[in-house]
Amino acid sequence: MTLFSGLSAFPLTPTDPAGRLKPDSMARHIERLCAAGVDSIGLLGSTGSYAYLTAAERMRTVRVAAEAVAGKLPLIVGVGALRTDEAEQLARDAAMAGADGLLLAPMSYQKLTDEEVFQHVAAVAAAGDLPLCIYNNPGTTNFAFSHKMIARLSRLPRVTAVKMPLPADGDFAAELAALRSVTAAGFSVGYSGDWGARDALLAGADAWFSVVAGLLPGPALQLARAAGSRNAGLSERIDRAFHPLWALFRQFGSFRVMYALAELLDNDGIAPLRPVLPLAGDDRRKVEAALGQLADIQPASGRPASISI
Amino acid sequence: MTLFSGLSAFPLTPTDPAGRLKPDSMARHIERLCAAGVDSIGLLGSTGSYAYLTAAERMRTVRVAAEAVAGKLPLIVGVGALRTDEAEQLARDAAMAGADGLLLAPMSYQKLTDEEVFQHVAAVAAAGDLPLCIYNNPGTTNFAFSHKMIARLSRLPRVTAVKMPLPADGDFAAELAALRSVTAAGFSVGYSGDWGARDALLAGADAWFSVVAGLLPGPALQLARAAGSRNAGLSERIDRAFHPLWALFRQFGSFRVMYALAELLDNDGIAPLRPVLPLAGDDRRKVEAALGQLADIQPASGRPASISI
Repeated sequence: MTLFSGLSAFPLTPTDPAGRLKPDSMARHIERLCAAGVDSIGLLGSTGSYAYLTAAERMRTVRVAAEAVAGKLPLIVGVGALRTDEAEQLARDAAMAGADGLLLAPMSYQKLTDEEVFQHVAAVAAAGDLPLCIYNNPGTTNFAFSHKMIARLSRLPRVTAVKMPLPADGDFAAELAALRSVTAAGFSVGYSGDWGARDALLAGADAWFSVVAGLLPGPALQLARAAGSRNAGLSERIDRAFHPLWALFRQFGSFRVMYALAELLDNDGIAPLRPVLPLAGDDRRKVEAALGQLADIQPASGRPASISI
Repeated sequence: MTLFSGLSAFPLTPTDPAGRLKPDSMARHIERLCAAGVDSIGLLGSTGSYAYLTAAERMRTVRVAAEAVAGKLPLIVGVGALRTDEAEQLARDAAMAGADGLLLAPMSYQKLTDEEVFQHVAAVAAAGDLPLCIYNNPGTTNFAFSHKMIARLSRLPRVTAVKMPLPADGDFAAELAALRSVTAAGFSVGYSGDWGARDALLAGADAWFSVVAGLLPGPALQLARAAGSRNAGLSERIDRAFHPLWALFRQFGSFRVMYALAELLDNDGIAPLRPVLPLAGDDRRKVEAALGQLADIQPASGRPASISI
């Protein structure tokens, strides 16, 4: 089991409307993940609003999370920024505040070239001096990593993993084989896009970087363990209970749905930072209904339970 | 002539590698635009690196530019930011520092909905209390404005213009007619994408939001005046001299080419902020050759001259 393998759970970062961390709420989110026993925490990922928070709040978030996790789980921290010098500083900050590994998306405004992203990743990996996972998320960064690029990056010191988007053709086995044939030995290939996680793990992906596990680690862990042990039948039954939620993730974006889930589970009044708006009315009720579908694997109390399907 | 009409020139923002404004260089860029007599200055647009600079440097940039322009030309200032509260503050800052109008791109990380962008624009327009141009630039913001959205926004107080990307089908006349039929009376429709400027102006667009005019205002002004007065033959001859430069804009992105042009014209050692890299070697020489093609309308000294084609 390496740092970037198994189920990595991505919590929200609870803030007030001015983007200041709510430390008690953050600690509760982290403790829920520790109690469930996920394999790592993906702090300040896209789900954790990293792109919207100041460097000072991001440092504070790592400190609060590191204290709450207390060494029980590895803490992976997102350090993306539009500028290289900012991302380097965030990497140093995260290392100092207790991160075990880094996650780096090549945020962009001007569309970036391969060479620009390569030099950016190399600089941030050197600055942080921690194992680093490349975050390949073209939907938010407007940059798509070619296999050739990933292969080249996998040979940089400290760059040990990639977080991939779901393959357009759904052929995980072919993509995994292709990536493993060109990347450095021991390089880890994991996936985000919760609705494709079961297929990714059945095909032998090293990790599931999971949004939903940030709030529902119990059910997510059961899905991860069933699919990770190549149990097609059991993983299909668990995945089916998630289908209504996956449909909402795809319709509204998982980020907005997660805030609605947080409100239903914790009722502690956190909301996305504007311009992103919380779901309301009928949309909220759809999230509630989807959560109900998970009752068999997630009791209303929020405690993880054994699956009884 | 309204604020958002005619030739709006977008200068680079000269900084050191840490993103701190070089005020003397900024003032020289502004003075060149004043001397040429463009119709407005588009400070801190995409070309002006707004997305990469801190709020403090952006405020400083507006102050320095406002002093250099000394009321001779209208000063339009880009106030985009990932968060609504940040963009509101930037709009207030710009107004206080001497802006005459605002330009707002809906920067995004999470993909935004129409309602989110609508509320974002409304909030920033209210905060700035200056005429505001919507910046429709899907290539950098990952958000495309529908005509319906522009129509709705055109009815907000202070929202008086849109800066459009080039139409995919090249049919400016149809797009202009469609937009004018749905937007509020007096709403201005201009275009960015320098290689389409001639066609846009010949078709009756209100403005050319020009990257190249930020460094070569003389030749750009001649193209704008020829096309704006519907002189197809003269504007075609001028545009032809720009063709090698347009090809490089499309190949490398106009942002990178502008830094190479600045080096050739001014030699004052400014470069894009990393991760963006300056053009080098053969690519630089191509920019030099393209600049040479403009010799008839832009003498080597940089002074604008009458066209003699």
